[in-house]
Amino acid sequence: MTLVKAYAAQKADGPLAPYQLERREPGVNDVEIEILFCGVCHSDIHTARNEWGGSMYPVVPGHEIVGKVSRVGTGVTNHKVGDTVGVGCFVDSCGHCSNCEEDLEQYCENGNSQTYNALLQDKKTITYGGYSTHIVVTEKFVLKVSDKLDLAAVAPLLCAGITTYSPLKHWNVKKGDKVAVVGLGGLGHMAVKLASSMGAEVTMLSRSPEKAKDAEKLGAHHFVLTTQEEGMSKAANSFDLIIDTVSGQHDYNEYLALLKTDGVMVLLGVPPIPQAVHAASLIFGRRSLVGSLVGGIKETQEMLDYCAAHNIVSDVEMINIDQINEAYERTLKGDVHYRFVIDMKSLKNS
Amino acid sequence: MTLVKAYAAQKADGPLAPYQLERREPGVNDVEIEILFCGVCHSDIHTARNEWGGSMYPVVPGHEIVGKVSRVGTGVTNHKVGDTVGVGCFVDSCGHCSNCEEDLEQYCENGNSQTYNALLQDKKTITYGGYSTHIVVTEKFVLKVSDKLDLAAVAPLLCAGITTYSPLKHWNVKKGDKVAVVGLGGLGHMAVKLASSMGAEVTMLSRSPEKAKDAEKLGAHHFVLTTQEEGMSKAANSFDLIIDTVSGQHDYNEYLALLKTDGVMVLLGVPPIPQAVHAASLIFGRRSLVGSLVGGIKETQEMLDYCAAHNIVSDVEMINIDQINEAYERTLKGDVHYRFVIDMKSLKNS
Repeated sequence: MTLVKAYAAQKADGPLAPYQLERREPGVNDVEIEILFCGVCHSDIHTARNEWGGSMYPVVPGHEIVGKVSRVGTGVTNHKVGDTVGVGCFVDSCGHCSNCEEDLEQYCENGNSQTYNALLQDKKTITYGGYSTHIVVTEKFVLKVSDKLDLAAVAPLLCAGITTYSPLKHWNVKKGDKVAVVGLGGLGHMAVKLASSMGAEVTMLSRSPEKAKDAEKLGAHHFVLTTQEEGMSKAANSFDLIIDTVSGQHDYNEYLALLKTDGVMVLLGVPPIPQAVHAASLIFGRRSLVGSLVGGIKETQEMLDYCAAHNIVSDVEMINIDQINEAYERTLKGDVHYRFVIDMKSLKNS
Repeated sequence: MTLVKAYAAQKADGPLAPYQLERREPGVNDVEIEILFCGVCHSDIHTARNEWGGSMYPVVPGHEIVGKVSRVGTGVTNHKVGDTVGVGCFVDSCGHCSNCEEDLEQYCENGNSQTYNALLQDKKTITYGGYSTHIVVTEKFVLKVSDKLDLAAVAPLLCAGITTYSPLKHWNVKKGDKVAVVGLGGLGHMAVKLASSMGAEVTMLSRSPEKAKDAEKLGAHHFVLTTQEEGMSKAANSFDLIIDTVSGQHDYNEYLALLKTDGVMVLLGVPPIPQAVHAASLIFGRRSLVGSLVGGIKETQEMLDYCAAHNIVSDVEMINIDQINEAYERTLKGDVHYRFVIDMKSLKNS
């Protein structure tokens, strides 16, 4: 075991604080990564605070990880010491169910191993995430990251990027398609960038008029204020795809009405309680309400390569590790453009 | 104008009773049909009783129509006097919107003309349905019916048949697919017959144990009692497609949990109020909740030809027109296997 520096929540209502974490020695197929940057995802907050239940303290959050390979096991063939790599929302899966066999590890039928607050495939060992100086991950779940891009701004691609890229690809967004994005946060800003990079005509749907300018800068072609009936009526039956990133309560039916015949609305956020859906919202126009969860390892690599080729990264605000509690408060208020990223030097040197 | 015999509701809370109806003389592109049989759909009751609002009295219901061509306009090329033909849920559409151009007249962007209690494309003339001895319909909306089959049992194909055939085809059901059907009524029994004819492994989901035998007779391979937790747990993650024909309140999430990854649940019924959907029910497994509305004219002809080739008709119970009010009461109680069909001789000879 190696003792590494980390930041952990010790209980639901306490702040994150320094913590010493034991990481396993790299096994035959393991890659040890010195973490350079880790993004701050809303899920980190939910888990640190046990808002979804099931938090196993201490919780070390973080699943938007970019770093350098520091050691490799003797069987590792895809990565070598010094390589720039990434780790996303999960670090292992069963590998043999039909979903794993189709590169859909995110839907592993036997339960994948999420990067933190989960169990490894031995169903015993608890996982600890990227708010630490090092992590050890089996090589298949380690992604290659191009050095071409700003690595801090790459980190959020490992969750916010793949979560939005995957549905855009799965539902086959192409040049000229009309895509709307609901909510302009960590996920929403990536959805706008990615959809417009794919040639879609992108509309931002938001209840905050002040977001119009930002949406335009990110690549949105239109802005519809969802609180204004006139704009919403005009937008009726107009979109091929809606990417809904909102996890607060909102009326799905209002957005479904904006879909063309055979249009698809993709839920990425999980509101605290179920939302009402009128069957007629779906039946008239053969519309689809669907959900999507991050992406598989193969697709995540494809996304990282795509982003490197198209020069796409997240808009980030850098923090030191000792600012993490303040960053959580600001994230909850939506006061971030659009993702906090921890500079892990601040932990290494602490 | 031709005066024809019909049965109409004069008000929401009155019975259907004999009525004299004016039908237009066949125009250049019109087909006049002597109606032989008309199915009794739940929508007929909703409309006769103004349960959806907007009923324009007198209401002459009926959109599962089979008959013989009695006259044709001079420009009619597809049908001739004596042909056996059918009419379904709509009798015209704009013909030039993008949906009409793609043979999806059911989703006509300018509003199609439903067979009864609607307006023709002149947006003035009210439509009257199949509870009458004759109907006049523009030729494009008149379907060819094979004389091979029992014509009374063909009538419900024009609504219940196409409403279930269309989603099975659209979501590409093929040999070996696992298809579940929720609810065993007019729609449900057709969904079972059609899905099993396509080679699917069909499961009936019902809260009524007494339906197990009937489901098997119709072609279902399995039966799951939805009130029993054990059977429902076993069925989790197992279906490619669920056809939900229920229009009463029910928990969509319970059924969504039965879908495989990328599985699709198709709503055909409209519960009186919106139903709660938990985003997690869709996100975990990239599941889809979709709706589907009858089918276009081209697809309806395809369905009729398919049924003729595969010897598929509805299970029907014949009534005379003067039994229609009693049939409504029995339909509401689910006391019909599985569709009432009016023998229109009983109206002609009344």
